[in-house]
Amino acid sequence: MRRAKISIIGAGNVGATTAHWCAAAELGDIVLVDIPQTEDMPKGKALDLMQASPVMGFDSNIVGTTSYEDTAGSDVVVITAGIPRKPGMSRDDLLATNAKIMASVCEQIKKSSPDCIVIVVSNPLDAMVQRALQVTGFEPCRVLGQAGVLDTARYRTFLAMELGVSVEDVSALLMGGHGDTMVPIPSCTSVGGIPVLQLIDPARLEEIVDRTRKGGAEIVSLLKTGSAYYAPAAATTQMVEAVVRDKKRLIPCAAYCEEEYGVGGFYVGVPVILGSNGVEKIVELTLTVEEKAAFQKSVDAVKELVETMAKLG
Amino acid sequence: MRRAKISIIGAGNVGATTAHWCAAAELGDIVLVDIPQTEDMPKGKALDLMQASPVMGFDSNIVGTTSYEDTAGSDVVVITAGIPRKPGMSRDDLLATNAKIMASVCEQIKKSSPDCIVIVVSNPLDAMVQRALQVTGFEPCRVLGQAGVLDTARYRTFLAMELGVSVEDVSALLMGGHGDTMVPIPSCTSVGGIPVLQLIDPARLEEIVDRTRKGGAEIVSLLKTGSAYYAPAAATTQMVEAVVRDKKRLIPCAAYCEEEYGVGGFYVGVPVILGSNGVEKIVELTLTVEEKAAFQKSVDAVKELVETMAKLG
Amino acid sequence: MRRAKISIIGAGNVGATTAHWCAAAELGDIVLVDIPQTEDMPKGKALDLMQASPVMGFDSNIVGTTSYEDTAGSDVVVITAGIPRKPGMSRDDLLATNAKIMASVCEQIKKSSPDCIVIVVSNPLDAMVQRALQVTGFEPCRVLGQAGVLDTARYRTFLAMELGVSVEDVSALLMGGHGDTMVPIPSCTSVGGIPVLQLIDPARLEEIVDRTRKGGAEIVSLLKTGSAYYAPAAATTQMVEAVVRDKKRLIPCAAYCEEEYGVGGFYVGVPVILGSNGVEKIVELTLTVEEKAAFQKSVDAVKELVETMAKLG
Amino acid sequence: MRRAKISIIGAGNVGATTAHWCAAAELGDIVLVDIPQTEDMPKGKALDLMQASPVMGFDSNIVGTTSYEDTAGSDVVVITAGIPRKPGMSRDDLLATNAKIMASVCEQIKKSSPDCIVIVVSNPLDAMVQRALQVTGFEPCRVLGQAGVLDTARYRTFLAMELGVSVEDVSALLMGGHGDTMVPIPSCTSVGGIPVLQLIDPARLEEIVDRTRKGGAEIVSLLKTGSAYYAPAAATTQMVEAVVRDKKRLIPCAAYCEEEYGVGGFYVGVPVILGSNGVEKIVELTLTVEEKAAFQKSVDAVKELVETMAKLG
Repeated sequence: MRRAKISIIGAGNVGATTAHWCAAAELGDIVLVDIPQTEDMPKGKALDLMQASPVMGFDSNIVGTTSYEDTAGSDVVVITAGIPRKPGMSRDDLLATNAKIMASVCEQIKKSSPDCIVIVVSNPLDAMVQRALQVTGFEPCRVLGQAGVLDTARYRTFLAMELGVSVEDVSALLMGGHGDTMVPIPSCTSVGGIPVLQLIDPARLEEIVDRTRKGGAEIVSLLKTGSAYYAPAAATTQMVEAVVRDKKRLIPCAAYCEEEYGVGGFYVGVPVILGSNGVEKIVELTLTVEEKAAFQKSVDAVKELVETMAKLG
Repeated sequence: MRRAKISIIGAGNVGATTAHWCAAAELGDIVLVDIPQTEDMPKGKALDLMQASPVMGFDSNIVGTTSYEDTAGSDVVVITAGIPRKPGMSRDDLLATNAKIMASVCEQIKKSSPDCIVIVVSNPLDAMVQRALQVTGFEPCRVLGQAGVLDTARYRTFLAMELGVSVEDVSALLMGGHGDTMVPIPSCTSVGGIPVLQLIDPARLEEIVDRTRKGGAEIVSLLKTGSAYYAPAAATTQMVEAVVRDKKRLIPCAAYCEEEYGVGGFYVGVPVILGSNGVEKIVELTLTVEEKAAFQKSVDAVKELVETMAKLG
Repeated sequence: MRRAKISIIGAGNVGATTAHWCAAAELGDIVLVDIPQTEDMPKGKALDLMQASPVMGFDSNIVGTTSYEDTAGSDVVVITAGIPRKPGMSRDDLLATNAKIMASVCEQIKKSSPDCIVIVVSNPLDAMVQRALQVTGFEPCRVLGQAGVLDTARYRTFLAMELGVSVEDVSALLMGGHGDTMVPIPSCTSVGGIPVLQLIDPARLEEIVDRTRKGGAEIVSLLKTGSAYYAPAAATTQMVEAVVRDKKRLIPCAAYCEEEYGVGGFYVGVPVILGSNGVEKIVELTLTVEEKAAFQKSVDAVKELVETMAKLG
Repeated sequence: MRRAKISIIGAGNVGATTAHWCAAAELGDIVLVDIPQTEDMPKGKALDLMQASPVMGFDSNIVGTTSYEDTAGSDVVVITAGIPRKPGMSRDDLLATNAKIMASVCEQIKKSSPDCIVIVVSNPLDAMVQRALQVTGFEPCRVLGQAGVLDTARYRTFLAMELGVSVEDVSALLMGGHGDTMVPIPSCTSVGGIPVLQLIDPARLEEIVDRTRKGGAEIVSLLKTGSAYYAPAAATTQMVEAVVRDKKRLIPCAAYCEEEYGVGGFYVGVPVILGSNGVEKIVELTLTVEEKAAFQKSVDAVKELVETMAKLG
């Protein structure tokens, strides 16, 4: 058996912390890539991380680079590249800039790792993953986005805090988009198997959902000079693990839905079975009328975003 | 911090495999105890297991013994002692014999580890744990039985096999007694958060429940010369971990229910929060009429068993 | 990435415990094989072990079988098959019987997994692995034996006990054969990097070496009705891990030495680099005159054993 | 058993990454502290890390704070506080500033966690840990510094790269101070137990030692805008683990040496046994004349640093 090869594009906090979690779990060898302007920074982070390995007892070759040649033949490519929104920048400016970055990254990946699974983490997520699909031309099952695992992780954390129980016993599913258009499915939330509404009253649950919805903003407001990276990286690592260990995890991802849920060819957060072939199945739930409406709102928001991106070029 | 001290009474397959899982997870130092007639056998298993530690990278003092003095001051005592039913032996004979063994073990534990949490694994479980409570005189929250975690583990395994998904994504809860009187709660079974009845039709689910109910017997019929030990030991280890790491797991255990569920002072399988103080809370679910009836049947069976045990002395 | 496929021949304590360690470390999918006369026993152990997986959080398909068809395409095959010496049985009878079992197993493996790495655990080890090489006809680097890791594990355990330090900090190397002809290399034994002779005086060290030499017999004399399996299985698992995760471990194995150490085409315990290609390098140490003599004695014993085996057919 | 309580002073990269490693290993509950000027930043990092826990499967309460009240009753306190050297700042300015920070932190710790073990990571290390001893007034065995584990980790990484072997098989010991005055002990360096000089020639080994000596500077020169944190945090976590799990690790630490090695009451890097009582033993090696001279040079440098610190107040 050869080791899995995992390339991570973007050596900022999310990318480097993903490298950290992946290496610590011995998921494979890791290539941490950033743009030439970052010079030796990816090399520095990679070497520092590798120097942790004798102490922590993991074997993983971790390479930092600014060249896609080093990523050749990757099994999984994680894309965290993109800029954050800066003061004075419009949403469309951000979208246009990150879409260009995504296209340029994907051109490279297409050439260097034609058989890989692509996991997009960059924002705005649902548009970025669509762009990744367009540029790579890969089968849709091989291009997916990370969003639901993170949202669900936050939700599970808040529920465990509320009930004073282990995080390991909280299961949940959130669908649709990130943030405002997130679709909680209370019937898919349980603690030790017990439906959450037997343990928390609906009004309090709604507050917890609302905190989850604003979970990314909460971290930004606390950190002041940056955004979350531990939980986003952990969520991404779970997806990488599902692929390289062929775990058939049933978890929410941004997946390309054609007929599923009547979406018509866009990326949206849905439960999938994730294994070595990428999205091996999209699981179709029966939604309530209310959930359907909320889900459609998410889909509409994605469509609009993708159309705007198309216009911007 | 001193390490946790975990004593395991009974060095047969279940006891020794519990020692294996506990040591590998570095839950604490372990004392493996058996009766004087086993001579050096517990010592042999303990030493063999300890010789695995440099390879597997865990530090745990593992001691085999036939003397309770070595268990002094344990934080957790796991009781697996008891004989299996032999040909020609009546159920009552078995009950009487194991109740005597349990009493003798508990007399010792009471003296040597007056502050410990007791986890009973011996069969018939619900009677044995009641006897442990009587003999130790400990607060009921410190004496509990392993049954539900094992049954649930089997059920989760069968569900994961059926759906072709990771075992990590299946949550479930089974209440009541072991085996025939097990009470499945379909509304407390989910996969990736999704209620199981959205994924498996009721008739097929009933077959899976039925296989679970007979899960122990299935292993016996395959092994021919013994009964299950890997999964029972894993289930027990999860309970030990919940106590020594104060994890507040919300899992099903045989817990002493007084007013809860109207049980009136018997042990029965219910969801509890398990932490360093033992059973920190019994979680009361709203059951359907059907579930209630099935649960009451379990309780009645336990009562009868306990009464029979009382008569046998 | 597909998961590694690991077949374990022999579902006794060593085989089943190897399955336990391998599954718990998520090294791959596991096939546990025994002879048809064992009927459903391997299935029973496999299913029991699999039912531990939801609790312990590992994903591994574990299959018990009596048919080699189920092992097809294995990456690694571990052979624990063979009978123990029975009262009244001569050493040669045992050798002849186990050589036949080994040949029959290897005929099957050759057909069903032509590209696998074979790790032999059966006794007498050095003869059995030679037989495996002959029958499979595989390149010598793909056929190796487990002995040194176990002996070293016992030695490290005794040293850690002696000094009251973590087993993780003791490094050691033992060469040559199992048991009586074991060759300790004090210059290759250290604790936290510190040469052992700075910490333990030579006379005491010799006692510890002697206990190690008789380590297997010590366990047998304690258990009375069987031999060690936890540490042998752990040692075997470390070798499986080195192969399936391509770890390039530098550990002692029974490797086929042609020119190395002037052995001339026999298996003997030497330090090797173990990775996905099996024995990737045999490391040649400078031995002292005394060590050389002891090593040669080991080699001579192996030669004699192999010659006897040849005569027995 | 209650969980261990681990407070980490300084929520920068080293502190926060230490929290990451400690939480992932479930070593205990964590309090991440920084100065009031950082406002909610520690809270943000703590919450983000906690939100990774359901995905990674660890239970740990992680709290970010600017108040020492939250650290009350800690078992271990890790101090990473201190400023890096800024352009135009003299070495003495840095020393004076960080000594003041250390004193202020230690005043607080003394009050809030009078029974804790203190692990100092701040630079210049050997002076800072002396100041910690002075201010807390704790027994010297409870105040120690992290340096040798990190240096050794780098050295082991370079040796594993050089030989193409697993990092797990490289053992080494470096004594004395950080950086320029580091004292390599080639006789205490081995790979799979084999003395390194049997595998690498002395000239090449000297180059590797030299790279190790400059290991921190190499990372700084690659990163440009910061210094190493993954490996320093991993090294610190190993020490925390040794204490909270009472592992009796034999590893190099900055320990207070009175008569040992004739140091006379200063902190210097020496091999110690580290357990729940802190430094449980200082291991005295026989050094060669050359090693002794190099070690003395280290000690002299520490003395000078401490004297300068004393003069600065």
